[in-house]
Amino acid sequence: MKAAIDYYPSRTGQQASLGARQDEIVYNTNKEESPIAYELIEQYQEQGYLLLDTLFSAQEIEHFRKAAQRMLKDDHLKQQAEVITEPESGDIRSIFKVHSISPAFKMLASDHRLVRLAEYILNDQVYIHQSRLNFKPGFRGKEFYWHSDFETWHVEDGMPNMRALSMSITLTENHELNGPLMLIPGSHKDYVVCAGGTPPRHFQKSLKKQEYGVPSDEALTELISRNGITTVTGKPGSVTIFDCNTMHGSNGNITPYPRSNVFLVYNAISNRVVAPYCQHPPRPEYIASRKTITPVTAKNHRIEDYAHCR
Amino acid sequence: MKAAIDYYPSRTGQQASLGARQDEIVYNTNKEESPIAYELIEQYQEQGYLLLDTLFSAQEIEHFRKAAQRMLKDDHLKQQAEVITEPESGDIRSIFKVHSISPAFKMLASDHRLVRLAEYILNDQVYIHQSRLNFKPGFRGKEFYWHSDFETWHVEDGMPNMRALSMSITLTENHELNGPLMLIPGSHKDYVVCAGGTPPRHFQKSLKKQEYGVPSDEALTELISRNGITTVTGKPGSVTIFDCNTMHGSNGNITPYPRSNVFLVYNAISNRVVAPYCQHPPRPEYIASRKTITPVTAKNHRIEDYAHCR
Repeated sequence: MKAAIDYYPSRTGQQASLGARQDEIVYNTNKEESPIAYELIEQYQEQGYLLLDTLFSAQEIEHFRKAAQRMLKDDHLKQQAEVITEPESGDIRSIFKVHSISPAFKMLASDHRLVRLAEYILNDQVYIHQSRLNFKPGFRGKEFYWHSDFETWHVEDGMPNMRALSMSITLTENHELNGPLMLIPGSHKDYVVCAGGTPPRHFQKSLKKQEYGVPSDEALTELISRNGITTVTGKPGSVTIFDCNTMHGSNGNITPYPRSNVFLVYNAISNRVVAPYCQHPPRPEYIASRKTITPVTAKNHRIEDYAHCR
Repeated sequence: MKAAIDYYPSRTGQQASLGARQDEIVYNTNKEESPIAYELIEQYQEQGYLLLDTLFSAQEIEHFRKAAQRMLKDDHLKQQAEVITEPESGDIRSIFKVHSISPAFKMLASDHRLVRLAEYILNDQVYIHQSRLNFKPGFRGKEFYWHSDFETWHVEDGMPNMRALSMSITLTENHELNGPLMLIPGSHKDYVVCAGGTPPRHFQKSLKKQEYGVPSDEALTELISRNGITTVTGKPGSVTIFDCNTMHGSNGNITPYPRSNVFLVYNAISNRVVAPYCQHPPRPEYIASRKTITPVTAKNHRIEDYAHCR
């Protein structure tokens, strides 16, 4: 597998800068085919994100929470590479590849409400590039600094173009104080070129604390000066869909209120990864699907199916 | 100077616990003498804090901001022990003893609007136990974990009783996302006894990151379950007055919006410090007044006085 043309060079020794996005945002232009109100698609196009807070029922969310709890209590799982812990406390921060490890989240990843929307926006069949269960514990939840996921997926995973999106399904109440997801509206229209390089095996550190692929103060100030910062707050079960290039981050959390969500990344089949642009070996399969790329088939799961899922 | 009876033992090897406050909150019971509406005093009594957002004019605040900027630019000052920097970036986080270093903040500390209120609540003459200018920079502002100031002032400075209060005057806009002051209403009525001990010269580390005198998760959960968490947000110039034992903290700040405030601690003359209860030598004079204890005389400064202050 040879590296394709690099439309989005970053961390290649150049100065930090803001470049133009080369790709579409919403790939399907047929309004009639949209699975949700087209005004919402237009909002996604302009803002780079969308909050849908009534996609799942309270019962469904309860099943997802139970599935998450089962994983947290699984001592065998804690030994796996898929589990990332907090640098200081050792608490679980993320579990990767949950669409494969957990039957419930495997079902969720193929839920038609998510998949049809991803297929529409990307105008292609989709597959899961990455999935995660995130925990921001109470009292000691650490910040996640500003980043564009695409910058990392491009440089370290070899994702050629901006034709992917993330869906974050909250399992806990998010409010302003427990480190909610913060997004910069409109930031998906620019590409933030980062200074510096990429050390080998960067992922082993970067999942805990990002030191490369970090946007400059100037780039962030410019992006935020245009449209400010939006936080995604609300009841458990709300779904935030955001473009792969939307700049986001979260503050730390010293409140007792933990924060938890399921994170699913859908990539267009036509945009499957090639060799990483940073010239290092690719990140492990549990962080970025490479060998096992299978289109997700949208399914109409019933609540009973989730209930019986173990 | 010998240590007096210890009404508030903490970090003496016992288990973490919640104890009862032994002292009054508002010491003056004569409503007629209150310099502000008595309902506000009652709120302070019950909640442990009070927000007054119209004490100072925009012009006055502008003078305070200029005074703060002058200190930030003073390279000579950066070499002084009074200046505390961020562990990683080296940015200035706090400047101590600003009521003595800066003519403008010296005036502010004697401003009748602040001093009369402190004298009323504590029903005594007052002096400045500690003063600080705090900066939480944009992008890299670190959290301040939950703490009761009194616990530290008692254990490490030898402040005998809860007869002191803090006033925080904001110089920047505080909103939910840039790490605003978070308070636990009603927490001033309990005393959170902390486990562990106090290492010698603890202050050299604790001003950057607190590791001793830290409340337990259980104590915090209990206090927060009663009344939740309040944040103090608003325009520059708002004044937050809080009891020395009100539990407070702040999240980190990755937004570009810096946060800055002047922090003045008034202690009752009758409550002046004795030998520290932790049996170590006292903290330096710039952190806790010990040798130079002079009652503050309330003065009616005019805006011109602040304007000409250098």
